[in-house]
Amino acid sequence: MKIAIIGIGLIGGSMAITWRARQLATTIIGVDNNEQHAQEALNTGLVDCVLPLPDAIGAADVILVATPVNAAVQLLPLILDQLLPHQTVMDVGSTKADIIKSIQNHANRSQFVATHPMAGTEFSGPQAAIPNLFDGKCNVIVDAQDSSPRALATAQQLYEALNMRIVYLNAQEHDLHTAYVSHISHLSSFALALTVLEKEQDEKRIFDLASGGFRSTVRLAKSSPDMWTPIFEQNRTHLLDVLEKHLDILQEFKQHITQQNFEACYQMMAKANDIKRILL
Amino acid sequence: MKIAIIGIGLIGGSMAITWRARQLATTIIGVDNNEQHAQEALNTGLVDCVLPLPDAIGAADVILVATPVNAAVQLLPLILDQLLPHQTVMDVGSTKADIIKSIQNHANRSQFVATHPMAGTEFSGPQAAIPNLFDGKCNVIVDAQDSSPRALATAQQLYEALNMRIVYLNAQEHDLHTAYVSHISHLSSFALALTVLEKEQDEKRIFDLASGGFRSTVRLAKSSPDMWTPIFEQNRTHLLDVLEKHLDILQEFKQHITQQNFEACYQMMAKANDIKRILL
Repeated sequence: MKIAIIGIGLIGGSMAITWRARQLATTIIGVDNNEQHAQEALNTGLVDCVLPLPDAIGAADVILVATPVNAAVQLLPLILDQLLPHQTVMDVGSTKADIIKSIQNHANRSQFVATHPMAGTEFSGPQAAIPNLFDGKCNVIVDAQDSSPRALATAQQLYEALNMRIVYLNAQEHDLHTAYVSHISHLSSFALALTVLEKEQDEKRIFDLASGGFRSTVRLAKSSPDMWTPIFEQNRTHLLDVLEKHLDILQEFKQHITQQNFEACYQMMAKANDIKRILL
Repeated sequence: MKIAIIGIGLIGGSMAITWRARQLATTIIGVDNNEQHAQEALNTGLVDCVLPLPDAIGAADVILVATPVNAAVQLLPLILDQLLPHQTVMDVGSTKADIIKSIQNHANRSQFVATHPMAGTEFSGPQAAIPNLFDGKCNVIVDAQDSSPRALATAQQLYEALNMRIVYLNAQEHDLHTAYVSHISHLSSFALALTVLEKEQDEKRIFDLASGGFRSTVRLAKSSPDMWTPIFEQNRTHLLDVLEKHLDILQEFKQHITQQNFEACYQMMAKANDIKRILL
């Protein structure tokens, strides 16, 4: 299978490593508008060659769009315009409604499969690509009924090679659920980092004390704004819904602490412990 | 050295493992008001024997108070009452002002060393005790000028055996800095878990999608309310100060997202990325 990967970063690059290792990809063609990233991907052997977008589309069986989600919305209609009947297109964006809307009425819609592998790290670019990133994790296929059985089978084969579980959701469900289990975590982490960085201006030694707990909660604040700004933009309605609830809960903690009602704080924390039931 | 450990949990138990392995402790005496924990500590060999508090104090060279901070405030005056001149007492609490206040005017104040090893996990109890928990981490010694050189040297020896870096702060500095680099992370994580658990009531499959980022930010929400409620209580002034700032920043994100000012969101995230400078 010849695979063109548009955007050779953490996700596209990690997929390239695994598909090649598991002998699913015979040729991997890279496309990246960042010339340095394209060169790194070539130098490190992530891709066999780097081509301009139209040439890459022409040469591939599968075209994977692994760009930030704002670029995906721009690129997908152009890619579908150029598609031959045997080809499949797949995206891996963290939002789905806007991306699907961009090609929903396209004549070649059924050759597109909307997917979201729930895996990543706080790093980005081709140097962040690692083997086994996806092992045992969950991939979402969205609005599967709008993809042809042939395109769907290709996507399933590619995700099974990544050793991922597949879950099927519609676009609204996907965007709501990811706002809860991913996007709010990133927003909270960015906000925590800003909170502490502001204090650090006065207190130079504060980070001497940073322990594992702090590292764990601010890890996501290292994530790329180029990737996350368009996610927040496309998923703003759901994100605001979750952020509102999160603010309410923080205000509730604040009120209990201000009023020195620590029994109520205890009860809130004991309830939060219920997360152990779900995340072992 | 005979060491009595009051509270054989994650911290006390992990210290017991390391002090024994590095041959600093000849005998470790356990004290725990939770009989099941005491029995587990004995069965697993964390401690050589379990004694009532007064007997343990009488038999030890060093008395380590590793209880929740509300219990430490109660126990320390009683322990200092009973102290012989060659003995040293040390606590490991996550707050310092209230703990030090509880014995500040005690005749035996100088035999006490206030410390806070900045290490832990989200687990608690003797079964959570692990080797190498403290390796390379930072320990704070607070108000060192109020401890005798002999007591201080004993504490330093014990922390060097744990392979910890030692930082010296006063109680106010300590409580402010830990509010920033530890306590707000825990509060934020408890609040995130509650946010998502509330949504889960309607959306049973939401946790299928939980990825590494979510796990990382809600990990601390598994922490013990018995430990954390008194920390929030004793450090409420600094915690509210930091929480206020954190809420302001989340409100700022909310405003930008509501007004679809994503350039401003981008700038906030880019600024938050500065955390990379500090936490590699």
